[in-house]
Amino acid sequence: MKKPIALLGIVLASLVPLNHLRAQTSEKQEPIMIERQGSFAIGGSVIKNPGTFDPIERTPEGQTFHGDHAYVFYQIPLETRKYPLVMWHGFGQFSKTWETTPDGREGYQNIFLRRGYSVYLMNQPRRGNAGRSTELATITPTPDEQFWFNIFRIGEWPNYFPGVQFAEDKETLNQYFRQITPNIGGFDKEVITDAVSLLFDKIGEGILVTHSHSGGFGWATAIKNPKIKAIVSYEPGSGFLFPEGEVPSPIANSAGQLEALGVPKEEFLKLTKIPIIIYYGDNIPEKPDPNPGIDGWRARLEMARLWSDTVNKHGGDVTVVHLPEIGIKGNTHFPFSDLNNVQIANLMSSWLQEKKLD
Amino acid sequence: MKKPIALLGIVLASLVPLNHLRAQTSEKQEPIMIERQGSFAIGGSVIKNPGTFDPIERTPEGQTFHGDHAYVFYQIPLETRKYPLVMWHGFGQFSKTWETTPDGREGYQNIFLRRGYSVYLMNQPRRGNAGRSTELATITPTPDEQFWFNIFRIGEWPNYFPGVQFAEDKETLNQYFRQITPNIGGFDKEVITDAVSLLFDKIGEGILVTHSHSGGFGWATAIKNPKIKAIVSYEPGSGFLFPEGEVPSPIANSAGQLEALGVPKEEFLKLTKIPIIIYYGDNIPEKPDPNPGIDGWRARLEMARLWSDTVNKHGGDVTVVHLPEIGIKGNTHFPFSDLNNVQIANLMSSWLQEKKLD
Repeated sequence: MKKPIALLGIVLASLVPLNHLRAQTSEKQEPIMIERQGSFAIGGSVIKNPGTFDPIERTPEGQTFHGDHAYVFYQIPLETRKYPLVMWHGFGQFSKTWETTPDGREGYQNIFLRRGYSVYLMNQPRRGNAGRSTELATITPTPDEQFWFNIFRIGEWPNYFPGVQFAEDKETLNQYFRQITPNIGGFDKEVITDAVSLLFDKIGEGILVTHSHSGGFGWATAIKNPKIKAIVSYEPGSGFLFPEGEVPSPIANSAGQLEALGVPKEEFLKLTKIPIIIYYGDNIPEKPDPNPGIDGWRARLEMARLWSDTVNKHGGDVTVVHLPEIGIKGNTHFPFSDLNNVQIANLMSSWLQEKKLD
Repeated sequence: MKKPIALLGIVLASLVPLNHLRAQTSEKQEPIMIERQGSFAIGGSVIKNPGTFDPIERTPEGQTFHGDHAYVFYQIPLETRKYPLVMWHGFGQFSKTWETTPDGREGYQNIFLRRGYSVYLMNQPRRGNAGRSTELATITPTPDEQFWFNIFRIGEWPNYFPGVQFAEDKETLNQYFRQITPNIGGFDKEVITDAVSLLFDKIGEGILVTHSHSGGFGWATAIKNPKIKAIVSYEPGSGFLFPEGEVPSPIANSAGQLEALGVPKEEFLKLTKIPIIIYYGDNIPEKPDPNPGIDGWRARLEMARLWSDTVNKHGGDVTVVHLPEIGIKGNTHFPFSDLNNVQIANLMSSWLQEKKLD
């Protein structure tokens, strides 16, 4: 199963000529021309407390609470391309994922603005600037960063993977750990995907760029809203949706069981109507490994391939690119902010061009 | 005491010629030329849990937790002015304060970028995108928005003040309420002001723009860091710092007692070294009022005047502008996002020009 996918990856990579790569790098010195920029809340719900508001005592009676919205910051460059990019962070992260990289270089926000795309950075409901949650939340400062260092495949703490595309100075790690921010209350898939679907209703047709946890939410949102014209997904972690009756068995790994989910076939078929590309980075073991930090990704990559095969069997257009198989080494769980992120962005640009989405 | 201050306000307003106002409005159609933009965490601390990290069991032993930093998004326009503006939200708010207004117009972020200022939007530690708190936090979704409607002087719920500079449509109120976001854990003045002081160490000399709760934090930060060259403060709410021995009595109001704080005189004197301007909006009663939503502001305005007199008596340069006294009516607690925010921005521009800070 792997070989044809790897070959396709090589074809994709070869679409990026070397001088194009050079141009993308040197254009960093040009100013970014912003036609307009701004922010708004989208989606969410309102708690309406019964009773009458007392302006003197100011008890909760008769008061409201607006929460569970997403928060979006957008920038529209001059002479923008047809479809905007909506960038959606993963678990425990926020829009910072796409902003300045931990080592201080430009992230996807700036890279794709410079390439003429409108960029919408989102914080999903109950995260970061969208922190007003309708659910009671208890947030405990539990030390967990070495766990994430391993899960995000920077290395095996305290060692960095040889050749990892991540700067090994202290301040980079400081910035990287400070990208983590808690969920305020529980995850509610409907609340989250409804908000993102409403975002596409507001801005019109566009391309969704997901990472990790938002990968699965992205498939669910694309089923809800046909204005999502394509998905670029970096290291989707869970929530792969199969037709009921075709759901594969869970994939055991040393981090637990990776489950697939079933949806009615008519919903699943909506995922066959749009082009989708999925990227995974390096240091994912080929065989079961006792280190759960990396072994979970073996299962997820395997699941992504099962899913890709299933969508494509039903007429879809999913490509899974395992970056080392096309000769791109050392990428972590965050390829878009890794040291070679311009190269990674070039792959995405080429794919959008190939699919006539630019 | 009021008269000379009001007259000074009139002089300031007259410095903004009408065609300047027109120019500022029409330039909204031009693109914003961004030399560079990005984001980073600044300040904060690290919890280091004793023990050795176990990559298999992944318990908290031997793990770290980076928290209590501020989060900053900055934009540097082409041909930027000498001093950047650091914009700091108030209580229960985040950087949205300065972004798109609730009714969808440009806020201070865009207005001052267009006027050539570098703009740094900050989320203080434990707020919004800086939500990683080293303190345990329990966050309850208590309906409270009618309380804030009154405190923020939009009106007396459910009525808007006649002539209020706030759009009365439903979506504006929806966006406005969704600007509220919780604090993750308690307020820690040292944690907060240390982070902002470190921000000025990083970016160099600049101008601090505060709102409401950050007003008091702003005075405390300016004592810590002489790189703060001026402060523009909108409706500072508390934390007025007087020399020990000169602290005025608390000012009673129907929302409680407004206390002044004492600091050693040598610290206080640092506040006499920089120009400071303070603005308050409309619908602040002149005499005690049973409505605590507005009466608290009577006390705060009175305290601001006592403070201004004290700083100036010691050789400082503080101006208090009560907007209705210079003929600008209807402003809420958020003058910088009110319907007349270009006019409000023009006052600030003129003051910066007058103080040779632009």
